[in-house]
Amino acid sequence: MNYCSECGASVTLKIPANDDRPRFVCDSCNTIHYQNPKIVAGALPVWGEQVLLCRRAINPRYGLWTLPAGFMENGETTEQAAARETREEANALVENLQLYTVVSLPHISQVYMLYRAQLLAADAFSAGTESLETRLFHEDEIPWDELAFHVVRKTLECFFQDRRKGSFGVHNLAFFPPN
Amino acid sequence: MNYCSECGASVTLKIPANDDRPRFVCDSCNTIHYQNPKIVAGALPVWGEQVLLCRRAINPRYGLWTLPAGFMENGETTEQAAARETREEANALVENLQLYTVVSLPHISQVYMLYRAQLLAADAFSAGTESLETRLFHEDEIPWDELAFHVVRKTLECFFQDRRKGSFGVHNLAFFPPN
Repeated sequence: MNYCSECGASVTLKIPANDDRPRFVCDSCNTIHYQNPKIVAGALPVWGEQVLLCRRAINPRYGLWTLPAGFMENGETTEQAAARETREEANALVENLQLYTVVSLPHISQVYMLYRAQLLAADAFSAGTESLETRLFHEDEIPWDELAFHVVRKTLECFFQDRRKGSFGVHNLAFFPPN
Repeated sequence: MNYCSECGASVTLKIPANDDRPRFVCDSCNTIHYQNPKIVAGALPVWGEQVLLCRRAINPRYGLWTLPAGFMENGETTEQAAARETREEANALVENLQLYTVVSLPHISQVYMLYRAQLLAADAFSAGTESLETRLFHEDEIPWDELAFHVVRKTLECFFQDRRKGSFGVHNLAFFPPN
């Protein structure tokens, strides 16, 4: 950030009065520009024993497998965001969404919120513009060495473990950056 | 938003290529300025049969009772944010935080994430700078008509119901604006 989005003047990184951390503050109108974490909402679409994964057509992690997920937009709920991302990335309709993993990634200031969800039909999906391919996988077919993100791996691990136990809760986790 | 925070030029609200909703786009450097929901993290601090509430010393809802909560900051986890807000608003230390209510407020583009938490001591709290007063309440003492926010009321209702059932899950809810 170099300029104030309100008045166009320059900004300076400094600790405002009654605050305890640096913010971008406008040198002219004194607006404080707060920056906050973003929510990434998505789904783990389930069909019978199988789960739906998408192969990424975009960077980062082009060509690797992921769950349909993306930045939550203003004006929607987390559940609506998860269903929208599933439509956009996998052309898939889901129902009965249940919050499943809530994962903080403090090093990149993101919070993932992923929902277990029922696919509406076995063939009701296809690659959206951000996917090369979409496919249903049984547990023993999951491409563990070709997953795009740690949060995807962890969510799938939780899911198959919980399914064996016969009980799904909500998993609230945090991943810290590697040293 | 009136000016590009990157280059200081004017911005125009328009739908970028390959997008489906209006964004502020820079007229000069073409930077797209996305705006996304914010997370409000906080706690429901518990001491025995009692819960801790704070009476707000700030607007909106000055003088009404609330749970300690505030905007999550970059670089922290949701749980760390909840504990920090509890320290700041109630000078209270909590442990054993368990994610409890996750509430979307799409009309103001916020998502509340509130944790049940154990207070470290019966007297280890006091009003922070944003609170007029902090107090422990038994269920029959809760000032239901003087609560600051619907999400606080709902979280307290869930808590006392779940306590009677003897089972606490995670409640994922959404509140829509009144007509």
